[in-house]
Amino acid sequence: MAEHAHIARFFAPLSQGDAGSFALTDDAAILTPPQGYQLVATTDSVIAGTHVMADATPAQIAQKLMRRNLSDLAAMGAVPWRYLLNLHTPALPDDWFADFTDALASEQRQFNLVLAGGDSTRGDSAVHATITCLGLVQGPPLLRSNAKAGDTIYVSGTVGDAALGLQLLQQTLTTTSAGTASLTRRYHTPEPRLSLGGMLRGVGHAVIDVSDGLLADAGHIAKASGVQLRLQRDAIPLSESAQEILTTQDVWHTILTGGDDYELLFTAPASEQEEIAALSEDLRLRITAIGVVAEGNGVMLDGVPATGGWEHR
Amino acid sequence: MAEHAHIARFFAPLSQGDAGSFALTDDAAILTPPQGYQLVATTDSVIAGTHVMADATPAQIAQKLMRRNLSDLAAMGAVPWRYLLNLHTPALPDDWFADFTDALASEQRQFNLVLAGGDSTRGDSAVHATITCLGLVQGPPLLRSNAKAGDTIYVSGTVGDAALGLQLLQQTLTTTSAGTASLTRRYHTPEPRLSLGGMLRGVGHAVIDVSDGLLADAGHIAKASGVQLRLQRDAIPLSESAQEILTTQDVWHTILTGGDDYELLFTAPASEQEEIAALSEDLRLRITAIGVVAEGNGVMLDGVPATGGWEHR
Repeated sequence: MAEHAHIARFFAPLSQGDAGSFALTDDAAILTPPQGYQLVATTDSVIAGTHVMADATPAQIAQKLMRRNLSDLAAMGAVPWRYLLNLHTPALPDDWFADFTDALASEQRQFNLVLAGGDSTRGDSAVHATITCLGLVQGPPLLRSNAKAGDTIYVSGTVGDAALGLQLLQQTLTTTSAGTASLTRRYHTPEPRLSLGGMLRGVGHAVIDVSDGLLADAGHIAKASGVQLRLQRDAIPLSESAQEILTTQDVWHTILTGGDDYELLFTAPASEQEEIAALSEDLRLRITAIGVVAEGNGVMLDGVPATGGWEHR
Repeated sequence: MAEHAHIARFFAPLSQGDAGSFALTDDAAILTPPQGYQLVATTDSVIAGTHVMADATPAQIAQKLMRRNLSDLAAMGAVPWRYLLNLHTPALPDDWFADFTDALASEQRQFNLVLAGGDSTRGDSAVHATITCLGLVQGPPLLRSNAKAGDTIYVSGTVGDAALGLQLLQQTLTTTSAGTASLTRRYHTPEPRLSLGGMLRGVGHAVIDVSDGLLADAGHIAKASGVQLRLQRDAIPLSESAQEILTTQDVWHTILTGGDDYELLFTAPASEQEEIAALSEDLRLRITAIGVVAEGNGVMLDGVPATGGWEHR
């Protein structure tokens, strides 16, 4: 199928609802953000074999790709709006593209955003996809750099599941525990905390998404804010599956330094404690205090300097 | 070097001048377009061995990557403003990154835009880089879809040079002609016609950049506008080098269907003839009438239906 027909068949339907995308037939898209909003832009790639398993399904690639980006918007308190897609693939059957674009369409409906443009190429190497995602934010965004000494440190959801799930998929971790499916699902299909991010505006001081690993991302807040983050290991929220594995194997290093959870790690002043409890209840999302912000620099875990993390690959 | 230090050293300097990029240390960039402008967004990738030679220098990759994107902005009549960069590389020495970012810095100065964000990954496959470029436009942009029967068809510069240059580099074309350096230079370092694009607003009816090949891109205007484009081969502007090769070899197919020239192909009403001559003189840029727009569909070359083109790879 010629490339233009291919785009018209598989990708143009994803641009419906955005007149400025010209059904992907023009050189570029026209974007007219609604009045009173600032744009938030982020971009992340997914390469088969690096960010997803080498044998990942098209839907798994589409979901990871979209959600890595949406998580960055969540960490800014922004609402998804538009995205551009670059897709490089080896020769693949039409079914692959149908599954990939069906999954993107589903993501678009779930997260309320529209494809505005893109680029597609064929070649010999593995699937390599990039999304550049544009969000909207009204008023000041959430940054990493606003943590204040005295703040409480919180994290949403549970930590370490995606990294444990990856190790299970790679068979570098084996377990007789039940509940491994929930871990691998967290690796394949992370949940961007968009609602929480939006509600943290005016509540949280500093916010980041846990993509590099809890300690590394705590370090990013510490560095950007010029403060010290003091974490308590026993306070870190774990899933039942992670707890069960911990009864027989010491996987703390994975939990603390593994990435891909895409939970929000944030700091907030003590005065917001009740508000955060209310948010947690409204969202039916666990939010756990795991430490405090102090003068100084770096990250302390149970009073000991914590280093390491999961550097961007 | 750890990835964050690597970003701080090589890429953060490219974000100077954009406070909303947070020196590439936050999750996403905040973009606040100046009042009264619309944003124009485009994205294109460059893969070593596909869009540039497998042994392309870092500067050649940076230039081709930037200019492919800027040419799309030119075709919309937009002014460059911000860009995001995704860079995947195999293990490469620091010198490579220094050369790559030096070249991007030079492009930024020349074309007046700033890095707002990005993503970098390491792996085993060839260099694979993506830019998502944001431009600004005031009032209606230039589209492919506005050609009217009776318009004259124009093209800037000369056609076919980049494709001939690529064949010389690939040694699928050999010639004893002098002037081959100018052809390979046009392949390596295309000139986005930003000034022309800006000045065509209110003058041109339909505009596209010649990236897929003259006939293919003429076809895109024809299809988007619902008209027929009638081209005269003898009118097509050729460089001296291309003319010299034509004296001994029939390279018309390459000239007509090769891509990568990044000239602007546009249509304008007869009433704009003098204005276009004045533009050409102001810009010291050859602008040549190469045909007329008629009722109908498709592209005719010297009265015969023309097919083919250089499909997006």
